[in-house]
Amino acid sequence: MLVVMKTQATPEEIQAVCDHIEQLGFRAHPLPGAQRTAIGITGNKDAVERGNIEALSGVAEVIRVSKAYKLASRDVKEEDTIIHFQASGSSAEATIGGGNLAIIAGPCSIESREQAFEIAEKIAASGAQFFRGGAYKPRTSPYAFQGLGLEALQIMAEIRDRFGLRIVTEAIDNESLALVAEWADVIQIGARNMQNFSLLKRAGRLRKPVLLKRGLSATLEEFLMSAEYIMSEGNYQVILCERGVRTFADHSRNTLDLSIVPAIRRLSHLPILVDPSHGTGRRDSVLPITSPKRPSLTALNPSIPPSLSP
Amino acid sequence: MLVVMKTQATPEEIQAVCDHIEQLGFRAHPLPGAQRTAIGITGNKDAVERGNIEALSGVAEVIRVSKAYKLASRDVKEEDTIIHFQASGSSAEATIGGGNLAIIAGPCSIESREQAFEIAEKIAASGAQFFRGGAYKPRTSPYAFQGLGLEALQIMAEIRDRFGLRIVTEAIDNESLALVAEWADVIQIGARNMQNFSLLKRAGRLRKPVLLKRGLSATLEEFLMSAEYIMSEGNYQVILCERGVRTFADHSRNTLDLSIVPAIRRLSHLPILVDPSHGTGRRDSVLPITSPKRPSLTALNPSIPPSLSP
Amino acid sequence: MLVVMKTQATPEEIQAVCDHIEQLGFRAHPLPGAQRTAIGITGNKDAVERGNIEALSGVAEVIRVSKAYKLASRDVKEEDTIIHFQASGSSAEATIGGGNLAIIAGPCSIESREQAFEIAEKIAASGAQFFRGGAYKPRTSPYAFQGLGLEALQIMAEIRDRFGLRIVTEAIDNESLALVAEWADVIQIGARNMQNFSLLKRAGRLRKPVLLKRGLSATLEEFLMSAEYIMSEGNYQVILCERGVRTFADHSRNTLDLSIVPAIRRLSHLPILVDPSHGTGRRDSVLPITSPKRPSLTALNPSIPPSLSP
Amino acid sequence: MLVVMKTQATPEEIQAVCDHIEQLGFRAHPLPGAQRTAIGITGNKDAVERGNIEALSGVAEVIRVSKAYKLASRDVKEEDTIIHFQASGSSAEATIGGGNLAIIAGPCSIESREQAFEIAEKIAASGAQFFRGGAYKPRTSPYAFQGLGLEALQIMAEIRDRFGLRIVTEAIDNESLALVAEWADVIQIGARNMQNFSLLKRAGRLRKPVLLKRGLSATLEEFLMSAEYIMSEGNYQVILCERGVRTFADHSRNTLDLSIVPAIRRLSHLPILVDPSHGTGRRDSVLPITSPKRPSLTALNPSIPPSLSP
Repeated sequence: MLVVMKTQATPEEIQAVCDHIEQLGFRAHPLPGAQRTAIGITGNKDAVERGNIEALSGVAEVIRVSKAYKLASRDVKEEDTIIHFQASGSSAEATIGGGNLAIIAGPCSIESREQAFEIAEKIAASGAQFFRGGAYKPRTSPYAFQGLGLEALQIMAEIRDRFGLRIVTEAIDNESLALVAEWADVIQIGARNMQNFSLLKRAGRLRKPVLLKRGLSATLEEFLMSAEYIMSEGNYQVILCERGVRTFADHSRNTLDLSIVPAIRRLSHLPILVDPSHGTGRRDSVLPITSPKRPSLTALNPSIPPSLSP
Repeated sequence: MLVVMKTQATPEEIQAVCDHIEQLGFRAHPLPGAQRTAIGITGNKDAVERGNIEALSGVAEVIRVSKAYKLASRDVKEEDTIIHFQASGSSAEATIGGGNLAIIAGPCSIESREQAFEIAEKIAASGAQFFRGGAYKPRTSPYAFQGLGLEALQIMAEIRDRFGLRIVTEAIDNESLALVAEWADVIQIGARNMQNFSLLKRAGRLRKPVLLKRGLSATLEEFLMSAEYIMSEGNYQVILCERGVRTFADHSRNTLDLSIVPAIRRLSHLPILVDPSHGTGRRDSVLPITSPKRPSLTALNPSIPPSLSP
Repeated sequence: MLVVMKTQATPEEIQAVCDHIEQLGFRAHPLPGAQRTAIGITGNKDAVERGNIEALSGVAEVIRVSKAYKLASRDVKEEDTIIHFQASGSSAEATIGGGNLAIIAGPCSIESREQAFEIAEKIAASGAQFFRGGAYKPRTSPYAFQGLGLEALQIMAEIRDRFGLRIVTEAIDNESLALVAEWADVIQIGARNMQNFSLLKRAGRLRKPVLLKRGLSATLEEFLMSAEYIMSEGNYQVILCERGVRTFADHSRNTLDLSIVPAIRRLSHLPILVDPSHGTGRRDSVLPITSPKRPSLTALNPSIPPSLSP
Repeated sequence: MLVVMKTQATPEEIQAVCDHIEQLGFRAHPLPGAQRTAIGITGNKDAVERGNIEALSGVAEVIRVSKAYKLASRDVKEEDTIIHFQASGSSAEATIGGGNLAIIAGPCSIESREQAFEIAEKIAASGAQFFRGGAYKPRTSPYAFQGLGLEALQIMAEIRDRFGLRIVTEAIDNESLALVAEWADVIQIGARNMQNFSLLKRAGRLRKPVLLKRGLSATLEEFLMSAEYIMSEGNYQVILCERGVRTFADHSRNTLDLSIVPAIRRLSHLPILVDPSHGTGRRDSVLPITSPKRPSLTALNPSIPPSLSP
């Protein structure tokens, strides 16, 4: 259910509607828009009694959301969600979503302070706003390098201070989630954990933006339902990321499914990014797939290392 | 690396080799066989110095394991792993693996004591040895029924006492893992968590059998590597389960990939089960796919409800 | 549309209804059943005027077939289609469909008279009724061996005479179709030609059984529609064959999709065979996938060569 | 094998080498390049005796081509193949391949002269150089509209005269191939016929450009091998076309596999086009997928109808 408030509804009226919903035993999700605020209702098994809510002060109408995903749906919020990062320290203001081009770059793993700084310097020079490096690595093999952990988080915090880049890094369980939330600007949930619902809910209780990567064989609906898990706990700052799916094709490591971008944009207000590094899995395909018309970009920024980790 | 002990090696000699390996900073995994014991070595980045170990008392030879999975490989343990369940209380002895036919049946979710007992009675009468019911459900939607939790575990414990059925149920995170390990006989790790490596490692520290379901788009190697995660922590009682993979085919919910069974059996000593309920996702396909020659089985046991949950 | 004739309808009445349908500019497909005859109507874009046909002598009722496939549907013919092969020369009577087990075996390609006879002798001794050998090979590479052509057909005709085995072989175009129809007992249409509609229609004008293999990424509906192409031209002797589909799985050459068998049997009266050789693409998986309970079969008939050609 | 001629080799020397190869019973494929001519040798099962050929006048060297595809490989021809269409009548010069942007547009089927002309006028106004309309339709159902055939070809010939657009249309069998080759500028071989090797060889004997669409589950190597079939018969004017592959994803009709474009360009000199209409199967995804940066293109040319036929 969705409660649409009148354009002129006051903060007090909005709060009163939320209180009413919570008293009914449900959860209220106020979603401010450019023109008016809507309030999503979740946790209701049966239809909420519409009449009483419509009678509350400031309420324009109460509508049913028929899709399985509610808070992630454009039915509930028509305008694009834009994630804002305030200017602070050496970092300028930045946004993800809307018409702006956000670029996230960095190495698969943070291997050392030297390696990370060398790459970060080139990324900052290229104009990208976000630095992504692996501190906790979800490795297929238990015997592979599992990441530097906290040490890597501290190195990336230094990179933020020095280069003004925002930090994006992956959390893989409760312990790493708490640390990533403390040290980074964006919490990444990787493809293998897209349906680790326990982790999603825990990320939903935080108030940091979450970059949610599409699972290797996730449908569009499953992808949005995983975003809904995060949002249902009150964290509405979800950034989706297409990173390629698993198919029979063997010329690339994954098959980048670009057509999910317009499909998501029709159905959801959430921003969606594309990861051409994992999406192709080939260093020499990254630039052709991202800017087919500008092959000379290779020459301009030859040093941006595409990250090719799982 | 694998240390193969001589046939006549004593327990003391085996222990001495394990101690030596641990002193080198690696992990020793003694794997008893019918003829002799082998000791897997993990945690070594570089090749372990072979000479010193070969010189230890009771050692026949030290060999390199070239596959990515070590402890799960038939190179390391030639005989089939058989999981034994001792007779206790009303439960007779049971095994999974080897030439025996183990049958696991039950409802998607435990919904009530009555529902669970009614189904359990029919399962016990059919000759199946294991009861599986969902206590913690990994739901695609945050708004769907998430399972009865501890209450369901307690109901299933009663079912074990009453019908002598062993209990299999899924753990989805740290909290449920601890409870499932306490109340159930087999811990199920579901398809969506097949690469939740943090959960796998935690299950590896327990000493209860783990039923590991294949992920929706997992390759054979990834499947065995996930088993390896559990084994690398010392829990060697891993049961694999094929449950269908995701393909373009739309006549069934998943495509049951039966040919992985002989492929796994060539490469690994671990037992592998087949889940025809999820593997087809259609009630009327379960019996044809399991026993094509005996259509009358439907008539014999019409009441076994195939479980069709995710 | 489907015209269901009364149980006691005479051949003359059936013929009169067919004539009436053809006069309307449509095509009539009489489909004799155990109890009564049905007459499929194809070629009608709009609904055929039902009233006039229902008024004809011997007609029980006229019903609409809502599925995209008509003649292949169980709605049109409830009983299983069984393909009969009359006894003739050294060949005993044989059937495909219904409850009987039909076995087709043979080499990928006929390479020489000696090779073919050596294999055929073992196949005959094993009790199989059908010999399949490639005369015309649909090769991925234009530079690969393309088959012995007519010479292979002649060798297989000799095999029929000598061993009493029926001959199944693939036609790949108009020229080979004419020759295969002349020399063989069953015309195979391969997976790569499953949607070569021109070839399907041409096979539909013949009166020899057609073994239609499922395409590498064909859905159930596409598969039945290809059968419908053959049937719409008047050839109702279509045998379907599941031979594995293309997926991400890399432990087998194709993924054998066994669950299509019960799904087809629910929707269609046509017989469906399973090709475990192409379906797995691995010699050592053929027996485990076909008779998991009888591993000793390997020892009994070690010489049946699984055919593993494309 | 590949014979690389010296830069200054004369036409007579090239001809003499070809004659020599043909006398050995092989096939010679002279492939002129900007700097020098290479001559591909096909039809040789064993290695051709290299020494004798290297001794011929004008020969620089003889090299082995290790890939399965020979004439389609960049190893054999380093420069991009560009298909030239000479100016003639109302049609200006046009090219496919190299750095130019070739646009092909038109309706799924030619339904009438009026429909075709109305669409063609808008296509010509938009600046596209090629008109594609279906005359022979490879329909999944035998009961669906199969195209206007010759009448459609004649309508398209009129469109060429009137608007100067080149005509691209699909051939589906021998009969339609002969007619399409007579009336059109480019012969399309559709996805369902990508491995109809008989049709490919027949198209290889013509001297018209062939637009070869990727099969629904074709790997890169299979795709190039199908091009090789055409080329092995002497027709080197092959244009590849990515049109989406079949996967589990259900938000689009096919999954457009854009990363095959750089992969093909690394391995082959043949031009490759992208078909965003079939590749997504959704009218509202065509523009976002082709020019993400220029959403206003929709407004500029709102009338270009994306073709969405199979």
